[in-house]
Amino acid sequence: MNFKTFLESTGQKAVELARTAEKVTRETGTYIVVAPQFADLARVADAVEIPVFAQHIDPIKPGSNTGHVLAESVESAGAVGTLINHSERQLKLSEIESIIELCREKNLASCVCANNPGTSAAAAAMHPDVVSLEPPELIGTGVAVSKAQPQVVTHTVNLVRKVNSDVTILCGAGITQSVDVAAALKLGTSGVLVASGIVKAKDPYIILRAFADATKQ
Amino acid sequence: MNFKTFLESTGQKAVELARTAEKVTRETGTYIVVAPQFADLARVADAVEIPVFAQHIDPIKPGSNTGHVLAESVESAGAVGTLINHSERQLKLSEIESIIELCREKNLASCVCANNPGTSAAAAAMHPDVVSLEPPELIGTGVAVSKAQPQVVTHTVNLVRKVNSDVTILCGAGITQSVDVAAALKLGTSGVLVASGIVKAKDPYIILRAFADATKQ
Amino acid sequence: MNFKTFLESTGQKAVELARTAEKVTRETGTYIVVAPQFADLARVADAVEIPVFAQHIDPIKPGSNTGHVLAESVESAGAVGTLINHSERQLKLSEIESIIELCREKNLASCVCANNPGTSAAAAAMHPDVVSLEPPELIGTGVAVSKAQPQVVTHTVNLVRKVNSDVTILCGAGITQSVDVAAALKLGTSGVLVASGIVKAKDPYIILRAFADATKQ
Amino acid sequence: MNFKTFLESTGQKAVELARTAEKVTRETGTYIVVAPQFADLARVADAVEIPVFAQHIDPIKPGSNTGHVLAESVESAGAVGTLINHSERQLKLSEIESIIELCREKNLASCVCANNPGTSAAAAAMHPDVVSLEPPELIGTGVAVSKAQPQVVTHTVNLVRKVNSDVTILCGAGITQSVDVAAALKLGTSGVLVASGIVKAKDPYIILRAFADATKQ
Repeated sequence: MNFKTFLESTGQKAVELARTAEKVTRETGTYIVVAPQFADLARVADAVEIPVFAQHIDPIKPGSNTGHVLAESVESAGAVGTLINHSERQLKLSEIESIIELCREKNLASCVCANNPGTSAAAAAMHPDVVSLEPPELIGTGVAVSKAQPQVVTHTVNLVRKVNSDVTILCGAGITQSVDVAAALKLGTSGVLVASGIVKAKDPYIILRAFADATKQ
Repeated sequence: MNFKTFLESTGQKAVELARTAEKVTRETGTYIVVAPQFADLARVADAVEIPVFAQHIDPIKPGSNTGHVLAESVESAGAVGTLINHSERQLKLSEIESIIELCREKNLASCVCANNPGTSAAAAAMHPDVVSLEPPELIGTGVAVSKAQPQVVTHTVNLVRKVNSDVTILCGAGITQSVDVAAALKLGTSGVLVASGIVKAKDPYIILRAFADATKQ
Repeated sequence: MNFKTFLESTGQKAVELARTAEKVTRETGTYIVVAPQFADLARVADAVEIPVFAQHIDPIKPGSNTGHVLAESVESAGAVGTLINHSERQLKLSEIESIIELCREKNLASCVCANNPGTSAAAAAMHPDVVSLEPPELIGTGVAVSKAQPQVVTHTVNLVRKVNSDVTILCGAGITQSVDVAAALKLGTSGVLVASGIVKAKDPYIILRAFADATKQ
Repeated sequence: MNFKTFLESTGQKAVELARTAEKVTRETGTYIVVAPQFADLARVADAVEIPVFAQHIDPIKPGSNTGHVLAESVESAGAVGTLINHSERQLKLSEIESIIELCREKNLASCVCANNPGTSAAAAAMHPDVVSLEPPELIGTGVAVSKAQPQVVTHTVNLVRKVNSDVTILCGAGITQSVDVAAALKLGTSGVLVASGIVKAKDPYIILRAFADATKQ
């Protein structure tokens, strides 16, 4: 669950949302990761036991990098992994590879986001832990990639598997209903990347619980 | 004091360094601001009463901005201002203006960094609270701008004052000795921006105290 | 006249459009500058005697800068000036200043584009030859800045004049009618920056001639 | 041969250098491509019959893209292909994929540069016509990648072949001697990407001819 920079997932609300996710994990056994903003990482990681990811880290070593995000810094705050190259925070090819390598060294989980089948395959060729397909034109629309573009998901799974047999594959964008989650799993992914569908929901618990139940079918 | 992304100013060490700065403020009455990494903002702001700045914020509103830094987020963590356009995190002109405007709305202090007299004047023309001259070629060298390039500082003060009569002017880069601080003030600035000179010092307290004393002469 | 990357102003069509502008200049005495794409600069500059600008140059010296635009290169192709920081090709503050300086050294005319009054003042503080206000939200809309936002143009002229008494001020965005041109001049600018209004016109000559005539009233 | 932005390969000198390359092609039958600056494309393509590449194109369609490089524009100037993602003009992953796709549509040859084995594999997974390994730390040093880091070239060839059986593989950086060219071919590449080694040579013909002869051994 990507918290993005919604007010509904900033500060104390980030902590509450993470607790909701933890509750659903406890109730259903579903593996849920939360990715709050940098300034909320420590508070969230202190409050819950489910895995906490950063939304981005920079391809840097400790030193003179004002305003950048150091792997050691998010780690010290309690993050155990990071999103990389989200469509809202896209990176150069060499930066993506460099961050994947950095994550490997630091034992952080790496989840590279990609906008289409071709870039998903390219991401997979660099052997991150997770590749997540997210067509940017569907993000925040409520039109789920797994429902609206099932052939894109299938094509992505095929291209990724040709170059990488064991990377975990997720998909996201527009996921707002539990049937979207079930559809994503049927198409060969191992889970979904969600944001506004839960963060902006009236009752995030109900949606998240429904999503978790959908993964059990 | 800019904490950059040094290991010596990450996590718990950021908190200790901020406490050292607070101690010097209490002892000398000098106005010291600390700018830790995003993930350390909350811990530092909880630990000290001196002002805490972010090292950067993005020109965004709440919403879908994965991996970006929201003003509301750093505010909620306890920041009361931000560096903008540090030479290590340079921004487009329209972004700088947009962030200054955002700071004005949010009542955050805005400190725009600039690399030479011309860009300092341009920054001042957008009416931030502070303009800080930092020639990037001197950063981290131990060769102080106020000692090595006094005419650059003077020229900056003159150009800035032509377009803005009340903005606070700082300078930085290479400042490692208390005489560098005294020199900066004599050249017409109101203070200095420092980083490695203190963060990487064997005993940051001694250096910081000497800097603070130098402002009293 | 900014040719942008319209097909109607690419290759041989760029040459024809420039010849149309030259014809209007000869007929009316109006000062018209054309800014074709990089690959068309030489052909256009060979074909006409009116001034030819690049749409952008990079802040670089000769050397290892694959894929960048060298001042010497556009000069050798016949350009006598350049647009800088167009809203579709925005630059960091230090890059803008560096390009203005480069233009001064090379005797190229510098026209810095800015998106609002604040950034226009900042641009003017760096002393380019021309500052051009272009609110990006109006570009290509047919809603002219000089008609729809006269107070923005007036405010820009006022802020710019506070920091720079002799820079030439233009405005642009949405200019499609000769009354828009006349309005721009009445508001205190010295001319307009136009693109689609002429490039995409059925008969560019008729529009351009009407614009030229409007400057004489 | 990448002309970069050297003065020795700007304007009329670009034409002369391209003629030298054409001469060597005629004498030896070696396949040589020249990549001059945007503003020189038309002049060079008019002067020689060997293939001319752009050094970069942007992932854009015709329209409002001031200061960008349109595929149709370089095509109209005579280019038949383009470098993509050179280490001096790096691009986001999605941009690279988008440009490869654009080249496919426009029948332009696509040569993606990559800085190491991992990014070379990622580039290959997007099926451009050519992948070229260029470790940026060796560019312009005279220390040839094929001599100094043979295992990096071999590793690149292996990783690329795992994900793409037919892409053409080149390598470059530091290539200044004919033995470097021969070494590159022995390591499994099909050719080299060169720039300063020839452009800055006292007599480019002699070096280029020696390189061409080295490919025949």
